[in-house]
Amino acid sequence: IINAEKSEFNEDQAACGQLAIRRCEFGADEDQEWLTLCPEEFLTGHYWALFDGHGGPAAAILAANTLHSCLRRQLEAVVEGMVATQPPMHLSGHSICPSDPQFVEEKGIRAEDLVIGALESAFQECDEVIGRELEASGQVGGCTALVAVSLQGKLYVANAGDSRAILVRKDEVRPLSSEFTPETERQRIQQLAFVYPELLAGEFTRLEFPRRLKGDDLGQKVLFRDHHMRGWSYKCVEKSDLKYPLIHGQGRQARLLGTLAVSRGLGDHQLRVLDTDIQLKPFLLSVPQVTVLDVDQLELQEEDVVVMATDGLWDVLSNEQVARLVRSFLPGNREDPHRFSELAQMLIHSTQGKNDGLTEEGQVSYDDISVFVIPLHSQGQRSSGH
Amino acid sequence: IINAEKSEFNEDQAACGQLAIRRCEFGADEDQEWLTLCPEEFLTGHYWALFDGHGGPAAAILAANTLHSCLRRQLEAVVEGMVATQPPMHLSGHSICPSDPQFVEEKGIRAEDLVIGALESAFQECDEVIGRELEASGQVGGCTALVAVSLQGKLYVANAGDSRAILVRKDEVRPLSSEFTPETERQRIQQLAFVYPELLAGEFTRLEFPRRLKGDDLGQKVLFRDHHMRGWSYKCVEKSDLKYPLIHGQGRQARLLGTLAVSRGLGDHQLRVLDTDIQLKPFLLSVPQVTVLDVDQLELQEEDVVVMATDGLWDVLSNEQVARLVRSFLPGNREDPHRFSELAQMLIHSTQGKNDGLTEEGQVSYDDISVFVIPLHSQGQRSSGH
Repeated sequence: IINAEKSEFNEDQAACGQLAIRRCEFGADEDQEWLTLCPEEFLTGHYWALFDGHGGPAAAILAANTLHSCLRRQLEAVVEGMVATQPPMHLSGHSICPSDPQFVEEKGIRAEDLVIGALESAFQECDEVIGRELEASGQVGGCTALVAVSLQGKLYVANAGDSRAILVRKDEVRPLSSEFTPETERQRIQQLAFVYPELLAGEFTRLEFPRRLKGDDLGQKVLFRDHHMRGWSYKCVEKSDLKYPLIHGQGRQARLLGTLAVSRGLGDHQLRVLDTDIQLKPFLLSVPQVTVLDVDQLELQEEDVVVMATDGLWDVLSNEQVARLVRSFLPGNREDPHRFSELAQMLIHSTQGKNDGLTEEGQVSYDDISVFVIPLHSQGQRSSGH
Repeated sequence: IINAEKSEFNEDQAACGQLAIRRCEFGADEDQEWLTLCPEEFLTGHYWALFDGHGGPAAAILAANTLHSCLRRQLEAVVEGMVATQPPMHLSGHSICPSDPQFVEEKGIRAEDLVIGALESAFQECDEVIGRELEASGQVGGCTALVAVSLQGKLYVANAGDSRAILVRKDEVRPLSSEFTPETERQRIQQLAFVYPELLAGEFTRLEFPRRLKGDDLGQKVLFRDHHMRGWSYKCVEKSDLKYPLIHGQGRQARLLGTLAVSRGLGDHQLRVLDTDIQLKPFLLSVPQVTVLDVDQLELQEEDVVVMATDGLWDVLSNEQVARLVRSFLPGNREDPHRFSELAQMLIHSTQGKNDGLTEEGQVSYDDISVFVIPLHSQGQRSSGH
């Protein structure tokens, strides 16, 4: 369910469908090796993706149209390794060194690491495509990306941004992603500004303080943190500490360079701090964090689901509250073939004051919210190859 | 117990004792503020530290003689904030902005964050002192550092290197530190080499492969990882991939630039790759990771202990094996006033084939091993201030 609320044009986008992965075929002429894609499908996966746009819907639309193709291409490039008992040292099956399998074994490299690598590469490739397309079309904007892929009995969740996926079972709520914001990535961002101070153009301070400092604080010892610190200390305030902070504000209000609420995502290649030449992109990562859920190892029950949603839902509902709504909705609607999409609809409604008593103090979200509810039960069977 | 085995001169060092923290007193003349240390002790803590030296014992000896002073100084600089209900925005107690306590509250800054910050700063200060002292005396070397501090009812464990501390209770074994090696810090180290390729002087490759590549691998697609990847992918081998890897080897054998088995610690300012000008120090961090154990919240029993030991012990014994040894030794020796140091001695003996049947397949360590066994029970009471 994709819901528009915040802006005239909805900035959330979504995509889902089957991933048909073909197999590469290797061959060799006298002076070069070549590979071709066999036309028929070799492995089948399922794909769900949410993109929460900012600065317009352009990047989110491009991501929804592109990322699955990048992922399919990346997976096709390594699929021979994915279906082997253990990924071979050489993709072509050549063996140079007799103990290659032992080296791979010692590194603990499994087929799932190739899928994780493919997801990481696909996000980066998609980010480059978006950069080129935005420039060519004179558009701007960026988006977060949350992707779930069901493949060979496992569910891969790749996240770059502040959307969230959780597993809800009868007796368990398990986060499948974590959020990437200026707050959660403070040390990485401060570290970069330490290494490349020119990125701040003398306009921002790298240091974190509990609030923005003012002239009266000069010469006083105040609480601060630098890039290498998880703890806090005191420093004597100098004039340069009065500059606007690299990361400012708390929680929902936290902003990178006063501009952006997320620290990972796609797009934003042209984004600059208002009225300056200071770029945001060097501080942003397109690489997702990937978690793997071994669905085949779970004793799945019919009402085990994954809930994926953009940040608007999680601003208003906790993981536990969403789990309670899932558990109270599904058992009463077993006969309804559309119960999973109706549950997604209900989750969105409950953030808009339309379902009184479900959210604390009737909290209401005015953000765009999009939700996938993915039943795992029918996904439990291993997708089979030809 | 400090045990020498590996080298003619033991490279392990240790220190322990009371930390007497004095209070600063603020005052103001007409044109400047000043602070003095009150002579009497204000807070009392306890301090235990293990330093595992390499390249000679010099850095470990300096660290054992210096780190506690650095820590005391860092704690004294913030002790006023530590004893407040909440650390104040301004150390001097001035109040510039009426909602300062609220800003500090929103950041979630607690007294323990000041101790964490003081530990982080103390390690860095000590590293600078060691650098100066080694240079002045023409000595070389480095060391890991594992420190436990008991203060205000909490136990702080700060670790830079591959030593380890665990909590052993009747029904629980809890790691209190994690190891920092070229393998566990691969992404940080590769990232640095990506940003500053000149650090490798064209002699090393940043990329990770399951084994060192050779000429026969040229042109083949082989498994690899770069800095942004947690997963694996395949790349076509180029000539530059045949260089020696930045991180090479597995587990105990893993080395940074072919030289060092740890990625955090003190010293090593002069360390270079053999026969080159390539420095190790840019890749090393002196900042520890700090974990906090809320001892006051544990329902302590008489035989709850913390075991701190250098890597030699953990190479041979798992956390669970150490816990079994602790639980089998202590109850039978309740009357012995030296039972904790005897337990430490016994743990070392059991790595030297002197206690048959305790270690799997009679594994033996030839490394230096040092062990603290710290009973928590008498530490459970809050150290009180004046």
